[in-house]
Amino acid sequence: MEPLRVNAQRLWDALMELGAIGETPLGGNNRLALTDLDRQARDLVIRWCRGAGCEVTVDRIGNIFARRPGKDNSLAPIATGSHVDTQPTGGKFDGPLGVVCGVEVLRTLADHQVETLRPIEVTVWTNEEGSRFAPATLGSGVFAGVYDLEFAMSRQDTDGVTIGEALRAIGYEGEREAGDHEFGAFIEVHIEQGPILEANGKTIGVVSGAQARRWFEVTVTGQDAHAGTTPMERRRDALLGASRIVTEVNRIGAGIPDGRSTVGMMQVHPNSRNTIPGRVFFTIDLRHHDEAVLADMVAEMREYAAGIARETGLEMVVDEIWTAPALRFDERTKATIAAQAEALGYDAMPVVSGAGHDACNIATIAPGAMIFIPCADGISHNETESATFEDSAAGGNVLLNAMLHLANER
Amino acid sequence: MEPLRVNAQRLWDALMELGAIGETPLGGNNRLALTDLDRQARDLVIRWCRGAGCEVTVDRIGNIFARRPGKDNSLAPIATGSHVDTQPTGGKFDGPLGVVCGVEVLRTLADHQVETLRPIEVTVWTNEEGSRFAPATLGSGVFAGVYDLEFAMSRQDTDGVTIGEALRAIGYEGEREAGDHEFGAFIEVHIEQGPILEANGKTIGVVSGAQARRWFEVTVTGQDAHAGTTPMERRRDALLGASRIVTEVNRIGAGIPDGRSTVGMMQVHPNSRNTIPGRVFFTIDLRHHDEAVLADMVAEMREYAAGIARETGLEMVVDEIWTAPALRFDERTKATIAAQAEALGYDAMPVVSGAGHDACNIATIAPGAMIFIPCADGISHNETESATFEDSAAGGNVLLNAMLHLANER
Repeated sequence: MEPLRVNAQRLWDALMELGAIGETPLGGNNRLALTDLDRQARDLVIRWCRGAGCEVTVDRIGNIFARRPGKDNSLAPIATGSHVDTQPTGGKFDGPLGVVCGVEVLRTLADHQVETLRPIEVTVWTNEEGSRFAPATLGSGVFAGVYDLEFAMSRQDTDGVTIGEALRAIGYEGEREAGDHEFGAFIEVHIEQGPILEANGKTIGVVSGAQARRWFEVTVTGQDAHAGTTPMERRRDALLGASRIVTEVNRIGAGIPDGRSTVGMMQVHPNSRNTIPGRVFFTIDLRHHDEAVLADMVAEMREYAAGIARETGLEMVVDEIWTAPALRFDERTKATIAAQAEALGYDAMPVVSGAGHDACNIATIAPGAMIFIPCADGISHNETESATFEDSAAGGNVLLNAMLHLANER
Repeated sequence: MEPLRVNAQRLWDALMELGAIGETPLGGNNRLALTDLDRQARDLVIRWCRGAGCEVTVDRIGNIFARRPGKDNSLAPIATGSHVDTQPTGGKFDGPLGVVCGVEVLRTLADHQVETLRPIEVTVWTNEEGSRFAPATLGSGVFAGVYDLEFAMSRQDTDGVTIGEALRAIGYEGEREAGDHEFGAFIEVHIEQGPILEANGKTIGVVSGAQARRWFEVTVTGQDAHAGTTPMERRRDALLGASRIVTEVNRIGAGIPDGRSTVGMMQVHPNSRNTIPGRVFFTIDLRHHDEAVLADMVAEMREYAAGIARETGLEMVVDEIWTAPALRFDERTKATIAAQAEALGYDAMPVVSGAGHDACNIATIAPGAMIFIPCADGISHNETESATFEDSAAGGNVLLNAMLHLANER
């Protein structure tokens, strides 16, 4: 029997419609978590899901669940989904692709009046990016019990607004308890955000697992002083100390195969041209697929920062604010994805995810897996991020058939 | 004859009253140029000057002139003054001391009903700090013809507000043409903002001149990309490039006797923890009393930045936005200050100013000089900046007698 296929044009149109909300001049998206633009994107997805015959509920951390009934609704649903929040200069695909593929599965099943044994669910997870509120993948993390609800609700953005306040402001603090139901399986479609599939000429990545990650916040404190009158040897310049650590952090990641080390955010105080900076705040993101290697990277970073503090008299506070273990996805779900990709005629290969995803949290409580498609030049978290019409459809088709297969198993 | 002396308590009280406007929790001041707090400080100084019998006028760039008539008002006035804007985490003395000493001269002359041959003027110059609007010492620069009025009015803060808009917003765009009158002499009282007077146990610094200064704005452009998925060797991290330049800029200043080199301001884009920064803007402030040495420092900085660009593929734009030549103050005015300090019994010494001051601009069109008093630990541009009651009074007394001496010369 020929496999069922999604409506590729409708899938693409939905991606573009979602991407018009918070669109940037360079064609990317600036749709930070729990802003009014995030609300508009959520409202649109809910309209689509209701249009496909689903009942929609929202939990207390703002996660959205659209449920398509099965023949036996006592069985756990087969679920999919991703997020609609973006980086401040993000693209149109990171997050939205996985949500829109889920919506397209609902629509295709409705078009063909397909009945499944198990229910099907499409989810939108809150604050995946971690850009406005740290940590990342917070909504799926609360659902999976990785984070307490209370901890999550009290996270603040740089203006001091909490997630709880932001959820109430956009009307997305739901009544459903987070994590109140099980999944038979959870599969997330996503762009690879790396160069491997493109370099190997493959359409589908069957994701084997994800890197371990550790996040730090560093505050360097010296002394504000006049740039013209303060002799160099009397200065305690917090930005000079911070700059040396930025250079070292990058050296650490570059010196280890498959290492990743990034300083992405920095704030300088008082940030005036003719005042020596007295205080600098910055973040460090370290990743490796091997947790022992990652621990070595962390130790090296901490030792260097302590050395700078001793040498310069700067005060140095290095807080570890988040850690995510290395992860392997469910073998049987991965095998189902690989088999459906083959049946559909797509070239597939296993890949490791360099990024964290909502699916990584859900995989701790249910059989989880991910489907990657290529993105141009491996570029993501960038307004120019792009994926093709054909590859997006391929992601939708593999998801559709994998979910159908799993949803008809008891 | 015993020299006339200021009312030390009244001088100190005026300093504290001015310092209460925009006071910070640590006892400093945050009174950025042309904000409503700056307006409040200006209004207060004008009330004081009118109370001492002066006529007050304002020029088009917002400089304030309080004039006390002499016996012969066809002669150019002997003037003094400074500024009331501060750094975002500035102190109570940098600027206000010079203004309050001027006000106290007016009050003391009124108390003793002293008539002078020449008029006396007290000035408040607009945007001395250069913190909200670059360049620094803008109001005195327009008065002295160092900058065009049109150039000055169009300078923008980081929110895109121009000086012209900000002046109109606080009601300080005056009608008087900038630079429409001459000074017989101009003397500014200021804290040293450095450690030399304190280290030498001196009360009065007779300022010989000022360092040459050159200001740069640097934009480093790389590419925003995902922190987890982008291999280190494929990154173009603008913050890494910027950090290496910060380290080198500091090395250049430290390697040259009397060199000063500072990166005070930095802005990172998009400034998200898990995105490699695609763009970083920062400033460089280089100073030396010898212009040839300063030119070598600039060349070394430019060569290093170009090398980083070649090595990393980052785009590097280094704009020189301001330059101020090295300066020697007027010999006769300095001799008058030194003589009056001796007559008053204060220990004095010559010092070079590490900072730029309004007096440096005025010295290009009139006989100019400065009087420094010590500040604790040489700390300035800092909320903990402090000077003593006695030293503040000493500055006022030397100013009073030097101005009296000059104002009675034809």
